[in-house]
Amino acid sequence: MKNVYFDNAATTQMRDEVMTSIIDVMRNNYGNASSSHSFGRSSKSLIEQSRKTIAQYLNVSAGEIVFTSGGTEADNLILRSAVRDLGIKHIITSKIEHHAVLHTIEQLKQEYGILVSYVNLETNGDIDYLHLETLLQTENKTLVSLMHVNNEIGNILDMQRVSNLCQVNKTLFHSDAVQSIGHYKMDLQEIPIDFMVASAHKFHGPKGVGFAFIRKNSGLQPVIFGGEQERGLRAGTESVHNISGIEKALKSACDNLNKEADYVKELKRYFINRIVNEIPKVAFNGNSGDLNKSTYTLVNVCLPISPKKGAMLLFQLDLKGIACSKGSACQSGSSQNSHVLTEILSDADLQKPSIRFSFSIYNTKEEVDYVIDVLKEFIE
Amino acid sequence: MKNVYFDNAATTQMRDEVMTSIIDVMRNNYGNASSSHSFGRSSKSLIEQSRKTIAQYLNVSAGEIVFTSGGTEADNLILRSAVRDLGIKHIITSKIEHHAVLHTIEQLKQEYGILVSYVNLETNGDIDYLHLETLLQTENKTLVSLMHVNNEIGNILDMQRVSNLCQVNKTLFHSDAVQSIGHYKMDLQEIPIDFMVASAHKFHGPKGVGFAFIRKNSGLQPVIFGGEQERGLRAGTESVHNISGIEKALKSACDNLNKEADYVKELKRYFINRIVNEIPKVAFNGNSGDLNKSTYTLVNVCLPISPKKGAMLLFQLDLKGIACSKGSACQSGSSQNSHVLTEILSDADLQKPSIRFSFSIYNTKEEVDYVIDVLKEFIE
Repeated sequence: MKNVYFDNAATTQMRDEVMTSIIDVMRNNYGNASSSHSFGRSSKSLIEQSRKTIAQYLNVSAGEIVFTSGGTEADNLILRSAVRDLGIKHIITSKIEHHAVLHTIEQLKQEYGILVSYVNLETNGDIDYLHLETLLQTENKTLVSLMHVNNEIGNILDMQRVSNLCQVNKTLFHSDAVQSIGHYKMDLQEIPIDFMVASAHKFHGPKGVGFAFIRKNSGLQPVIFGGEQERGLRAGTESVHNISGIEKALKSACDNLNKEADYVKELKRYFINRIVNEIPKVAFNGNSGDLNKSTYTLVNVCLPISPKKGAMLLFQLDLKGIACSKGSACQSGSSQNSHVLTEILSDADLQKPSIRFSFSIYNTKEEVDYVIDVLKEFIE
Repeated sequence: MKNVYFDNAATTQMRDEVMTSIIDVMRNNYGNASSSHSFGRSSKSLIEQSRKTIAQYLNVSAGEIVFTSGGTEADNLILRSAVRDLGIKHIITSKIEHHAVLHTIEQLKQEYGILVSYVNLETNGDIDYLHLETLLQTENKTLVSLMHVNNEIGNILDMQRVSNLCQVNKTLFHSDAVQSIGHYKMDLQEIPIDFMVASAHKFHGPKGVGFAFIRKNSGLQPVIFGGEQERGLRAGTESVHNISGIEKALKSACDNLNKEADYVKELKRYFINRIVNEIPKVAFNGNSGDLNKSTYTLVNVCLPISPKKGAMLLFQLDLKGIACSKGSACQSGSSQNSHVLTEILSDADLQKPSIRFSFSIYNTKEEVDYVIDVLKEFIE
């Protein structure tokens, strides 16, 4: 039996050079970065070097990068502090954001009584930009939180358009870019965004580290209190080895971006071609079947089989060594439908099984062949 | 020049077997523990195995261990949720707690208007247990937060006494045990405590992971919102390699505890003997000069030299390759006095330089000799 990992939107395998870097730091740099002696300074210098590297790739200044334990914590930091410390009374978001954003906003609504508006969605899962403009006509101090690339259906937000709209309306703009940083070139001088969030393990880095981009003079305050780490914005002894890992992972991702994106996009193209030709009536959720309007890293297919048979599908794929998912990993144990698909699919389509296949540089066309063959066999 | 690392209360070197375990997991288990396929299940099983191991060493059930990004986050989780979700209106703590506790409580006071009482301290830094009893006579719903082993002066709290007092007074009890877990045997069936916090990098584990012990049915809710990880108590993709690292680190620490504690205690005894005999008028801060009343891992000495000369001391020690600190690492860049020593020393003693030397199994008597010789030379 083959083992095929087609769940790269949930998490990715680390690159060899990332592991090498982590191992080197674990062995040789155990000082606490807050200590003033040589052991501490050497850890501090690794962290600041990582911050600088990451800042360069995003075209921001190093002081605008704050390391966290991951994307979720970074989303929480930004959203909570925006409400508590910046006086945000109104958040505009969408119902197909990641739970790190949706659940945090629901909690803030409970704690602070803020107003939450959900922008309308087109049937393809894109946001209704005109509705967003309407929502922005408000006297309330507002923050917009919309993800860059949707983790389930791969739709890509028009960052330029949203950030311009926010700027015109003097509204803060936050984007969970966990599915795009490391996969797309990002120049934050061109996009006037206030806050952005990344997670290392989505681009072949280690789990347990991410960062928040926080535009200079934002006024944000910490959510985790204690020591003065991260210029007072995030307390807790830094995970030096993980931070070196995220640096190396972003560096490798960005340095090889065009070549690797082409490779993965070709896998997606090949997957789409085969499945369209060989499984009649297959449908694509969101924009994920459109190579130009969705991320090259994933496809989300709605299969023409009965609910009863569909209920066994993930289980059967798993038995064949194929890793993929119904929706985000955070929900995958649950029997509930994906909150994203629930928003955009018809009731009839929701009855059919939808599966997300997500690709990386470690996948091959042979793996696509194997998966399509298994799918065909199951469906016939 | 030698390199002597005597700052083990700030952070410790990882054990070889901890690194081996981390490397193995990085290479072979990259699944997202929330994914239901085989890659995910294998990560999930590593995490649950770690939880079980840790729970066994503390004699609690696995469901009472919640993994976090470290001790600071765990303190924040417990304190914030106790106030927000359990209706705590009054926190009793001391002025010599770690900043992860003190600053969090100050913030909660600001946000929720809770009452904060600081228990009186004896001149040796011990808490005044009778004052604590008086403070506990209150109608307010109260939580006591007192650390087990003080990170600067090594004083040991009488956990049995405080937890009994709390139980009698129907008060919740939280302890930051970051300096003691992995260094002392801990049986939480014998100590009726509600919440406890540990950090891997204080006992030769990786930085960026710790855990909260949260007694069953506590009612705590998350502070970081998003996915359903950690049974809904802490969102964010788990750092599987770091969690395997903390398991291995606690296992090694506990399995070798008696032997290793004896070894480190002997280093401390030797350090005390030499410094007392060779640097007249040296004084010990807190209980740290008393082998029975302080942790065996550290000593905090007040040196009989002028403030002017003292200002150069850490710098000179660093030049000689010796890593030690003025207080907690979180403050070491700052020119302020330690908040702990400020509470217990006379103004005259505060003028003299105080230095914390903290030991581990990787230190030797030869290193003690070298450090004492350098100190003598500097002072003469």
